[in-house]
Amino acid sequence: MDLELEPVDRAPTYEVVISRLKNEILSGRLRAGDRLPGERALSEQLGVSRASVREAVRALQAFEIVQARPGNSPTSGLTMTARPRIALSNLFRLHVGLASYSVEEVMAVRVGLETQAMLTLAEKTDLDLAGLHALLDRMSDPEITPETAQDLDAEFHLSLASQTNNHLIADMMQALRDAIAAPMLASFKAQPDWPSFCATIVEEHRSILRALEARDGRLAAQLTRDHVEGFYPAVTDSQEPDSTR
Amino acid sequence: MDLELEPVDRAPTYEVVISRLKNEILSGRLRAGDRLPGERALSEQLGVSRASVREAVRALQAFEIVQARPGNSPTSGLTMTARPRIALSNLFRLHVGLASYSVEEVMAVRVGLETQAMLTLAEKTDLDLAGLHALLDRMSDPEITPETAQDLDAEFHLSLASQTNNHLIADMMQALRDAIAAPMLASFKAQPDWPSFCATIVEEHRSILRALEARDGRLAAQLTRDHVEGFYPAVTDSQEPDSTR
Repeated sequence: MDLELEPVDRAPTYEVVISRLKNEILSGRLRAGDRLPGERALSEQLGVSRASVREAVRALQAFEIVQARPGNSPTSGLTMTARPRIALSNLFRLHVGLASYSVEEVMAVRVGLETQAMLTLAEKTDLDLAGLHALLDRMSDPEITPETAQDLDAEFHLSLASQTNNHLIADMMQALRDAIAAPMLASFKAQPDWPSFCATIVEEHRSILRALEARDGRLAAQLTRDHVEGFYPAVTDSQEPDSTR
Repeated sequence: MDLELEPVDRAPTYEVVISRLKNEILSGRLRAGDRLPGERALSEQLGVSRASVREAVRALQAFEIVQARPGNSPTSGLTMTARPRIALSNLFRLHVGLASYSVEEVMAVRVGLETQAMLTLAEKTDLDLAGLHALLDRMSDPEITPETAQDLDAEFHLSLASQTNNHLIADMMQALRDAIAAPMLASFKAQPDWPSFCATIVEEHRSILRALEARDGRLAAQLTRDHVEGFYPAVTDSQEPDSTR
């Protein structure tokens, strides 16, 4: 009997390099701020080509695990980084682009994160909402454009998320917001009565702030849920035909 | 006056390749399932070296934007993929490893996602909880080890997340769960009275299922919050010293 054996899949060399560096991170031996040896030294230590090292580093750079600083100064070279803000944004933007995730799915996750944020914020004694009231005053300008309103709206939600002091909530909120910025803006622009639509947003934001001022986390969470869910139909309806798959 | 001008930072070639491919995705011209030209063709089309193309592809593979299938068959080569499950897990695991995010931050995001999931699940008419009751029966074995209990516990939470039909909630839950698997297991093992601790988990899971069966989303959400938050001290206390930074 003739066996037709498939060749055993060997992991490409760059994956071996990634997996060695991953182990160093997960075991706690490589930490944020640590310097990595240069490409040449890494290739000698690991016994692989410099091209494979570079490919592995590119993948880790995409994840913001490693940061490359150009030049020959003492701070240049490869450093272990922390907080994958751009990586998360890129990951979600591209996967919303590829329709891995729908805008509706992203909105539902936003609600989960934001309601959680509200419960945390209502417990805080050093909450600073003065800047957000000022922001809403600017947002109340009857001549405001959808573009400016969107920027201020993002600032409102992200400022609250970052005041939770939970970096993951803040970074996720930023990333998900970036991922659906285009359909959000399209929904603003598609409003038949833009000034009254925008006034409603401002009023809903004000009631969220009032609930936080009253330290009523459940009410703030419920108002945030109603506020974001109120957008679902507008945002998911106003997508470009080629991004609604 | 002599000006000392810094040289203008030019983006590395591989980043130019990434950015060209990103634009194709975000404009909807490249979609999940589409084939990419091979390395040689891409390098000719873009006028860059094959090494730069390969570095860019490695970064996109890390994000599971592109999948490479080896060989010379009609399905081999570079394909645009969907659903970055491994990428999300890797991203969060490595960034928890680098202490970009603490276990406590991850737990809080889990609560946000799971309470959102419960509200969605309670609205569903085709919820299938029979398998989860059977799972809890297995988890009620008084001889169960922390390792087996952890696997079943993960299966319980992830099965509920995936029944929301929100891929982003399901993938995020899986990724966050992977990211804190080690401290979770350590906390199970550190329990002074493991059998009664495990019995409590099972009972809390059962009450969540009863709330879902009664279509009471708010109650299911609250029970899930209490259940996961009940773990916070256990999980964050039982971390290895070198991962508590």
